[in-house]
Formats: sequence, structure tokens, C-alpha cells
Amino acid sequence: MMGAASGQIEQKLLDDLYADFETAGLIPLWTQRDDLMPMSPQSAAVPHLWRWADLLPIAERSGQLVPVGRGGERRAMALSNPGLPGLPYATPTLWTAIQYLGPHETAPSHRHSQGAFRFVVDGEGVWTNVDGDAVAMRRGDLLLTPSWAFHEHQNVTDEPMTWIDGLDIPLVSQLDAGFFEFGPDELSTRATPERSRGERLWGHPGLRPISQPDRPNSPLAAYRWEHTDAALTAQLELADEGAPGVIEPGHAGVRFSNPTTGKDALVTIRTEMRRLRPGTRTVPVRSVGSSVWQVFNGEASATVGDKTFEVTKGDLFVVPSWCDITLTAHTHVDLFRFGDEPVYEALGLARTFRGDQK
Amino acid sequence: MMGAASGQIEQKLLDDLYADFETAGLIPLWTQRDDLMPMSPQSAAVPHLWRWADLLPIAERSGQLVPVGRGGERRAMALSNPGLPGLPYATPTLWTAIQYLGPHETAPSHRHSQGAFRFVVDGEGVWTNVDGDAVAMRRGDLLLTPSWAFHEHQNVTDEPMTWIDGLDIPLVSQLDAGFFEFGPDELSTRATPERSRGERLWGHPGLRPISQPDRPNSPLAAYRWEHTDAALTAQLELADEGAPGVIEPGHAGVRFSNPTTGKDALVTIRTEMRRLRPGTRTVPVRSVGSSVWQVFNGEASATVGDKTFEVTKGDLFVVPSWCDITLTAHTHVDLFRFGDEPVYEALGLARTFRGDQK
Amino acid sequence: MMGAASGQIEQKLLDDLYADFETAGLIPLWTQRDDLMPMSPQSAAVPHLWRWADLLPIAERSGQLVPVGRGGERRAMALSNPGLPGLPYATPTLWTAIQYLGPHETAPSHRHSQGAFRFVVDGEGVWTNVDGDAVAMRRGDLLLTPSWAFHEHQNVTDEPMTWIDGLDIPLVSQLDAGFFEFGPDELSTRATPERSRGERLWGHPGLRPISQPDRPNSPLAAYRWEHTDAALTAQLELADEGAPGVIEPGHAGVRFSNPTTGKDALVTIRTEMRRLRPGTRTVPVRSVGSSVWQVFNGEASATVGDKTFEVTKGDLFVVPSWCDITLTAHTHVDLFRFGDEPVYEALGLARTFRGDQK
Amino acid sequence: MMGAASGQIEQKLLDDLYADFETAGLIPLWTQRDDLMPMSPQSAAVPHLWRWADLLPIAERSGQLVPVGRGGERRAMALSNPGLPGLPYATPTLWTAIQYLGPHETAPSHRHSQGAFRFVVDGEGVWTNVDGDAVAMRRGDLLLTPSWAFHEHQNVTDEPMTWIDGLDIPLVSQLDAGFFEFGPDELSTRATPERSRGERLWGHPGLRPISQPDRPNSPLAAYRWEHTDAALTAQLELADEGAPGVIEPGHAGVRFSNPTTGKDALVTIRTEMRRLRPGTRTVPVRSVGSSVWQVFNGEASATVGDKTFEVTKGDLFVVPSWCDITLTAHTHVDLFRFGDEPVYEALGLARTFRGDQK
Repeated sequence: MMGAASGQIEQKLLDDLYADFETAGLIPLWTQRDDLMPMSPQSAAVPHLWRWADLLPIAERSGQLVPVGRGGERRAMALSNPGLPGLPYATPTLWTAIQYLGPHETAPSHRHSQGAFRFVVDGEGVWTNVDGDAVAMRRGDLLLTPSWAFHEHQNVTDEPMTWIDGLDIPLVSQLDAGFFEFGPDELSTRATPERSRGERLWGHPGLRPISQPDRPNSPLAAYRWEHTDAALTAQLELADEGAPGVIEPGHAGVRFSNPTTGKDALVTIRTEMRRLRPGTRTVPVRSVGSSVWQVFNGEASATVGDKTFEVTKGDLFVVPSWCDITLTAHTHVDLFRFGDEPVYEALGLARTFRGDQK
Repeated sequence: MMGAASGQIEQKLLDDLYADFETAGLIPLWTQRDDLMPMSPQSAAVPHLWRWADLLPIAERSGQLVPVGRGGERRAMALSNPGLPGLPYATPTLWTAIQYLGPHETAPSHRHSQGAFRFVVDGEGVWTNVDGDAVAMRRGDLLLTPSWAFHEHQNVTDEPMTWIDGLDIPLVSQLDAGFFEFGPDELSTRATPERSRGERLWGHPGLRPISQPDRPNSPLAAYRWEHTDAALTAQLELADEGAPGVIEPGHAGVRFSNPTTGKDALVTIRTEMRRLRPGTRTVPVRSVGSSVWQVFNGEASATVGDKTFEVTKGDLFVVPSWCDITLTAHTHVDLFRFGDEPVYEALGLARTFRGDQK
Repeated sequence: MMGAASGQIEQKLLDDLYADFETAGLIPLWTQRDDLMPMSPQSAAVPHLWRWADLLPIAERSGQLVPVGRGGERRAMALSNPGLPGLPYATPTLWTAIQYLGPHETAPSHRHSQGAFRFVVDGEGVWTNVDGDAVAMRRGDLLLTPSWAFHEHQNVTDEPMTWIDGLDIPLVSQLDAGFFEFGPDELSTRATPERSRGERLWGHPGLRPISQPDRPNSPLAAYRWEHTDAALTAQLELADEGAPGVIEPGHAGVRFSNPTTGKDALVTIRTEMRRLRPGTRTVPVRSVGSSVWQVFNGEASATVGDKTFEVTKGDLFVVPSWCDITLTAHTHVDLFRFGDEPVYEALGLARTFRGDQK
Repeated sequence: MMGAASGQIEQKLLDDLYADFETAGLIPLWTQRDDLMPMSPQSAAVPHLWRWADLLPIAERSGQLVPVGRGGERRAMALSNPGLPGLPYATPTLWTAIQYLGPHETAPSHRHSQGAFRFVVDGEGVWTNVDGDAVAMRRGDLLLTPSWAFHEHQNVTDEPMTWIDGLDIPLVSQLDAGFFEFGPDELSTRATPERSRGERLWGHPGLRPISQPDRPNSPLAAYRWEHTDAALTAQLELADEGAPGVIEPGHAGVRFSNPTTGKDALVTIRTEMRRLRPGTRTVPVRSVGSSVWQVFNGEASATVGDKTFEVTKGDLFVVPSWCDITLTAHTHVDLFRFGDEPVYEALGLARTFRGDQK
């Protein structure tokens, strides 16, 4: 039986020990095992919704007040997850921004080890030059600027244009793997071709240029809405004929892929477009890893964890790791989606659970 | 110094030894090392040309005289390389035939472990049903019937149709890896859709159905001429603009690929289309492995080893292993080509030499 | 020319805009592009040294004062990088701890998605049971407890034992990919075999059990010092004979690998042992990604970035991302090293620069 | 109803057609579909046994009568499958020979694209120099001379030595992929080290030299009997303890693997050692592809297709494609085995059926 005195001595010894931990640059596991190693992922990020109706006016005001150019580089406003206060991160791995380019503005050339894409929910008139290849941006298109490709933008019209950017900035930042380089101050090209070189070379189904080797990221600089739309339409029609193709009844989906490998278009980011028929309710899915969704068309409810968002065109919401997501389509709905799944698959950390809550 | 007597004794011992080799089921290496292990590939197959003008009338006569149906299965006439007498092999690994289907004829369902494709140099009106998916065959199209897929043909028109078949029959035969199964006697479908299910699901550039896994052979049942033509046209235009893409000046080329892996459309057979501008002379290429070429359009000279063939639409010629090939285009020329390169690449046996004769 | 009044108005508009950014959950890129996307990796982690002579007494005091058991799970004290204050992280991706197990103590069974290893700088007498397979821990051994393998420890001697643990806890935490499960409270086995089952099955050079499939992590539960030592000795002897094998003159190195794939023993962590001959000075190397080094034998200087550490047996130091490291051996030196390179290689983010400072 | 006259006319037309097929270099499919495309593999090769007691004396007589040297290159006598008359092929893909080297003889240096190994059923005293690395050959060892590695042999003893060679000569011949090159006439080295450089660099379980890249064939020039024996012993002991490892009860097996990839030691040839406990009867296995087996130790029955061979030390038998094999061990039995499975796996042609006859 330990008396009060020995208890006091022991406490003193413990206090000394913890003080010495700090001096020695040590932190004991036993006081924080729960936080460090939770029973299942407990993301600091939370399900959250950003309404396009809120974002767009702010982007437009930025266009009036903030110049775009060398240094800041882009007039891009990042979604900051309320669970990651002060950080410009939509999720712990994904950076997402609304970018605005005014009439006849340009954004200067640079490149970085972070992988990037643009998705256009509305408008047109901007060309992104990727390693000197001018790529038109139009509603519904997905544009890639893979790791270490020089890129710059120019708006050739009298109208502003707005789109979203997606990058793996948080991932690369946490990994201390970011490199950045400024390109020439002058635009590499003022060309405004209907089709980019990348599309002309790679944009033919199942056909590879014999001269071109495999690449980790897709060489197809743009995935056009007309093809995405046709692919989704076909899946639902095939389902009507009893043929396979859809993800589940009423729910079609395509993945933007690298034609040299069949894998994701970007090494670190999965990009997809989903289509729901009116009335469809998707089976709940819970996955390791996070994603960002943007409504392209239509009206839906999105239940993410314990929150339900009523969403419409342009609205963006995030799904943290190991958080259920279910979609209910009030109308025909198209959703663009990107996530970090390739990271987990490459590292042996992927898990997915389909179905109702355990 | 060995006398005549001991020489005779030694010869007797040697004769006995060789006789005992035979009894024991042995064959010494030292008498045939040169043949077994040549300094470089010495194919028994020879460069050879089959003229379409000769083949087509024979195919038509077969159509009059030989029924198509269960047992023989196909009205297909195989190219027999003169260097492989009595064998229906265009090269030591590749079987190639002209197939003929009369008005309203059908060819019955079967499947086999051999991989197969069809290429259409002229005509239309036949549908190939692949695992129940009806695929139209038209000029310039490449159609796949991969290993172990059930397939059957029907001609829905009043005109006969002719095309070429390519299979890995010799390879699979030498490897003792052939399996064959008869399908139902009745056609699986009489449908004649403009686009097959496979194309509707997979024929969108860079877009993968999320629901579908990787496959060793391409799920894209048909590669249409309109896409192949556009891809070749684009490569030559890009070259005019100084952009990469062509194989060499004036020589464009696409490879038919598996969108789930980026690799060859068929595991064992490489399939490609080449385009030459008038006047182009290609750099000589010598590779391990053999290939078969068919002129799709135009007039050219093909120098294969020490033979030169003047070729025109439909003509077929073969290039044996380690034999130089050079093409000279008299007009705009399109050539379909297939080869066994994937086999050598998979087995670490690939070698290619580009340039003039050593 | 903008007057004072309009300047005030503009500032007011800007202030409003920034306030509305915050309300909307947006953070502009242009104010923090430098931090988010540095020109090259600027790790918050710093080069740092922990002396074994400091750590060991603290570990022993913990052994007196802190019980080991369910909940805290392990008597492990993590190295906390001074650049990552308050976090128990040696580097932004790697968790490293000194673990102490007293005489006849046990640590209870659990498993987690985090990958782990143990490395023993001194002592013996503990067995780690990995999925029920008892693995002896001895000086110089590397022991694996891969992702999701149940593991527990028991000390069967009258002496305490101390070793280091390495895990990918920070990486998995940032990725929100952690799963944890408690095992049975009772030890799965009290066996103390000389060789574990894993070693008996897999510990034969170049020999695979035919019955066993590939695995993402190595099935070889222990890499014994006798083999590591012999491999390093052989490399230096081969160098003396003019044969290849060493990394650079006087610098030998082996990587612990997965015999089913030839890749790293753990999917997310590279583990290596290096040996330097007395007087060897290694070429500076700068890599993306971080590493932790522990001296196993001998005396050396380690220059990491702008710091130089004089190190001896048991000392641990860290190399942050994109920070030069050079080693100078005062005696024969053996160093255990682990790093996060497999993560960067899988994600296309690896870069290495060898040689003197640019 | 067709009259006799019209029948005669039709026959004449058919005869003309078939004659014209021949002239045109065509062979119709319908007359030989059965042979070209059998329902399942019908190998021309047959199950066959070569008794060591027959082979060894013939090899010794060859040693008396036939010189070894440049040109013939090796005193090797190939097993000729009775189903492949006149061909020095054990199976359609595998060449196997007994090789004999007399006291103090040497066999000159050469290299070839064919992959090769040696397996030693008895004796020692020969060193094989592989790219200048001297590798001792002893009972139970597997030695590799991969594609395009220079190799030569020298017997440093007063006793002759005999072993078997295995190569992919038939495969490479059928593929027209053979290259051959003579090396220097003089031996590259007269060294006779206990361990080769390859073993010293690579022969440590799970340990890779950091400086060495992946290779298609194993860099481990020799797999020693002591390791093979230990691995097989361990599997059977583990089975006694209820742990996994054996192929089936009483049947252990190891595969010789490439430590840089975990795959087969040679790209085109699988090499394995099997051990059976007395009384074990293996489950019948039928696979696409062929194999050659050599008894290393013990007495067994081997039932291959409809033949049963009673086999003892040194005896060699072949298993053609898609032919059942069952082994019954009368004593403790060790069997070396090599096969062409990697070829079929790479080409998507592998199939295996386990269990009693369908």
C-alpha cells in the first residue's frame, strides 16, 4: 500500500521525467496514442459546402480590385475547410480555388511539381498554354497542367471567365516536395486554336502515336465536354438495354485517364464526372481519402457524414476521409469530382466500404 | 601418330556412339550448334508478296463452291509463306487469311484461346458479334475478337464481303496452348447497330467507365477508320507546324491500344496503321519478330531484305524476323501492319536496329 | 493619377473583399503563394541530433515510473523535431521512438494501418509476435510489423531491453488513413524460437516458397545482423577486387527488400544499412523526402544542411527534405537509415541531386 | 437434284480452285481447322523418360571420343522427345542436355540470346565463368547463365564432371530470336573461388545492394543446395507445426527467383525444386506448357498422362502441355523441375487444372 508520502515522491519523479522528455526532445506515445492512431480516420476536415452564388460575386470583385501577375501569379481564391482553420485547403490533401481572369488579361508562365487541373463550370474565352501548346477552355472541359509543365493563361475576349483549379498543394506541402519555377514574362504563344496539339495527337479513342513513350501523367491536355457527355449518355442507354457500364442503377460515371497507362490522368489526383438520373439515390460509400465535388448541372441533395447539402450548378462540397456520401438527384444531375485515391492506392492504404452504415 | 588401323577403330567407336545416341534418344549439340543457335535470326520464312488482285477472285470462287458453317467454321484462306511449305502460316508466329462471306451468309459462333482481329480493306455489310455485341465491319476498320471471346459473323446485305483475319495461331500452336469451343448454332443476335456496345462504352478519348476493371486485351471491339484517318492526318499537320508526333519525316503512325493499360490492343499481336506522304522513303528498320503489311491506299515500293515489291491497294507482304524493311511512297500511302512484337517485349527478346545495313 | 480620396475608397473596398473572403471560407492565393509553393522544399523540420547517452537514461526512468499496457500500448518515447514543436514527429512523415520493455514485461497485441519496424541497437531477450509468429529481437536486427499485422512484445529475460521503432504515423495521420484495432489481452504465444516461421519460410537467398503469393510488404519478419554484416563486408571486399557493388568508394550499403517483389520491405518506408570505411567522406546527397539515421557502430561526423553532428553508437539524427547530407567516418562506421523515398517514387515526386552544392 | 454431270463439273471447279490455292500461296482453313485449332492442346511431344543409368555411360564415351572446343562449343547431348523426331528438343519449348567435361578440359566462351541454366545432379570440380565471374558447380546447385551473358567452363580436377543444361532454344528458334557471339578463345579467369562475386553481392536473404538496379534475369549466378535443402526442410517442419508453406501435404517446393523482382530467376524458364515425403501422392495437375523433371534423390513413380515411370536419381522425364502429372514417393524424394510457365503467364495463355481427370 502506497502512502501519501510515497505518492508525492512518485509524482515528483514523474513530473521530472516529463520535464526531461521535453528537454530531450521526446514526446511519450502513451499520452496521445488515441489521437495519433485513431480506431478509424478522424479527419480534422469537415463536410462543407461553398455555394457558387456566393463565390462568383467575390471572384468578380477580386477582378476589379486585385491585379493578376508575376508574384501572386494567379487571381485564385482557395476553399478553406472550416476544420482546417487558416489553411487554404479544401481537404488535407487537395487545394481547390475559384480562378478569375478579366477581359484580355493574362496570367504569367510558371511551373511547379504540384499537379494541377482546371474544370470549367461556365464560360469560355481563355486559353491555357501548356508547354507552349494553346488549349481552349470551355464549359464542361477538364484541362490538365501536370507536374512540372509550364503553363500560363490568356483571356482573348471582352468577357471575364471563371473556373476552378484543383491541385495537390497540401499533399506536396506536407511531403516537402514542392518545386516552383517562373517562366518567361511574355506569353509563349498568342494562338487560339480550336484544338490543342495534345488533343490532335492523343485525342483519338484507343489510338496511340507510335512515336510517343509512356508518361506518368496524361499527355491529353484537355478532355472535352462533348466526349464526356456522350460517354455518360451511352452508359445510361446501355443500362436501359441491360448491358453493363453504369456504376449502379441511374448512376453513370467516367474517369479521366492517361491513355499511355490506362491509369488516372494525374499521378496524384483522380478526376471523374458522374451523372444521375432524376430520382436516383446512390448507395452510401465511405472511402479512405478525401474528395471535392462540383455540381455541373441540375439539383441534388448530397449527404456527407451527418450533413445534407441542397446543391445546384457550381456549388462545391467536400467529403473528408472515411465519411459516408450519398447523392439524391432531384433532376438530371452532372457532377464533377476529384479525389486523392491514387495516393492511397499507390501506398497500400486504400479502403472502401459500400452500403449502409455499419 | 595415329595409324590407319587405330583410325578405323576410332571411327567404329564413333559410329557406335552415334548409333547409341539415337537409341538413347539423344542428339549431340556439336553437330548442329550452327543451326540451333545461329549468329543472328535466320528465319525459314521469306519475304513474300500476295497480290490482292490474285486473292480476291479466288476468294470469290470459294464463295461459289465452298459452304461456310459448323466444322470448317470460316471461309478463310490462309497465306502460306513459301519458306514454310505446307504450313498455313504467313510467318512463324502469325496466321493471316482472306475471309469471304456471301450475301446473307453467316459464320457460326465459336471461341478460342488464339487472339484474333479483322481488318477491312474494302466493303461493308457484315456484323461480327463478339460475346453478343454486334460490331459493324466497314472499310478501314480494325475489329478485335480477343482470346476466348465468342464470335460469329453475319452478312446482312445482298453483296459479298471480304476482309483479312489475323491470328496468333502458329505461336499458340507451337506453344501447345490452343483451346477451342463451339458456341450455339444460332446467331446470338441479329442486331445491326451503327455503334457496338463496346464502342459506346469505351470509344471516348481518355475516358474510362468507372465501373470497368483493367483487361489484358482491349475492350474496344472496333477501331474506326474515321478516327485512324484523323489521327494520321493530325500527325502530319503537326509535323508541318514543327511539333512532334510523326515517326520520321513524312511517316505518321498510330498503334491500336488497350485503353485500360495503354498497351497493345491484343496481348500477343501489335496492330498499327502507317501513312506515308508521296515521295517519302523510310529509314530501314530491322527487328526481331515478324510482321504482315497490307496496303490500304496508294502505291508504294516495299523493300524487304533483298526483295522489292511494287504494291497497291489490298496487297499483302510479310517481313521475316531480322530482315530490313524500307518503304518508298509513290503516292499518298496508308498501310495496315501487324506484328508479334509484344511477345518479344514480354520475353526480353526484343531488338531493333534502325539505319542502313551494318 | 489616383487621388487620396479614391485611394481610401479602394482600400475600403479591398478591406471589405478580404473580410468577405473570410466569411465565404476563401483564402486568396496571391498573399501566400510563396509559402504554399516554395521554389524548392523548405521543410519546417530541421536537422537535429538525439544522443543515445541522453535517451537511454530517460527510457530507463520511464521503465521505473510508467506502466506498459492496454491503452497506452507501448512504452515508447517519440523523437520530436524542434522544427515541428509539440508534434511527436522526427520528420513530417516519420515517427521514431525509443521503446523500453522491462524484465518479463509484455506489451499487448494490436494492429494498425501504419507500417512499422523495430531496429535493435543493443541488447536482446524480447520476442515480437507478428500474427502469432514469435520473432527474436537481437542487436543489429531489423524486424517488420507491416500494416495491419497483429503484434505484441514479451521480454523473457531478467534484463530490460531497448530498441527503436519507426512508423509512418505522420504520413498516415496527414492522409487520414489510420485504422487501429486492439488484439486479445493475452499473448498469442509464449514461444521463443531461435528462428521465426517467417524466416524459416522466406529467409533463403533467392528462394521463394511456391505456395506463397506476392505481398505489398515483405513476409520476411526479421533481417538478421549476421546477414547484413556479411553483405556489407562482401561489398567492400568486392570493391577491393575492382568489382562493382559499393555505393561509392569506401561506402557500402544494403536495402532491406521484399523478396516477393524486389521492392522496399515496407510499402511506405525505405530501410537500409550503410557501412563506411575509416576516413571515408561521402559525396553530398540532397533528396526530396526525409530520413532518420542511427549509428550502429563507430564514430563519425554527419553534416546535414548547415549543421555538423559528431555521432557515436545509438545516436539518432534526421535529414529533412532537400537538405544535403555528408558523412565522414572517423572509424569503421555502420549506420541504420530509414526514409520515406517509396512514397515519392510512387507519386512521381522523387528528385535527387548528388554532388557539391549548386 | 444434282445430276452426275453437274457433280463432275463441280468437282472439276473445286479441283481447279484447290490447285489455284496452291499457286496463289493459300491454304484453306476449313480443311485443317481441327489440327490448327484443337479443342485443347494436343502436343506432338509425348511423356518420356531418359534413365540416368543410360545417359551417363554415353556421356562418358563421348568424353573419350569427341573433343570439346570452338565450333561445337560444348560436349552436350540433347534429349530428343520421341514425339518430335529428329529434333533435339525435350519439349516444344525446352532444350535439355547432359553435358560432360573431362579432367582439366575447358569449354570456350560464348554468349547467346537464349537463356540457360545448369543443374548438377552429381559431382563437382567445374567452374562456370559468367561475364568473368567464376562460379563453382557442385551437387544440387542451380547455376544461371542468362540471355547474352558470356560464359565458359573449366574443369580444374582430375575427374570428369557431368551435369544438365536447360535452355529455351526451341522457343527462341521458333521465334527467330536467336543471336550468338563467340567470346575470346582464352579463359577469362582461372580463379576458383568458393563463392562467386554474384553470390557475395546478392546471396543474402532479402538484402539488396543499394547500388544495383533491377534486371530481367536474376543477378544471383548460383543457388546452392545447402539453401535449397534448408528451405525445403523448413517447409515440411512448418507443416508439422500447422503453419502454411508447403504446396500440399507432404509436398514442399521452392522456386528459384530473381531478387530484384521476385519473379522467376530467368525470364523464360521457371526453375523449382520439389521435395516429397515417403508415401506422398500429389494431386494431379494439368497445365498449359511443358516441363522437364530430374530426380535428385530417392525413388518415385511419376504418372504423366497415361504413362507411369519408375524413377530414381538422375532420371529425367518430360511433361507435355495439358498432360496430367502425379507423383508418388516411395522414399524421401527431391526433384528438380523446370518449365516454360513464365512464357504463358506473360502472354495471357496460362491455364492450370488441379484435381482428378474431368
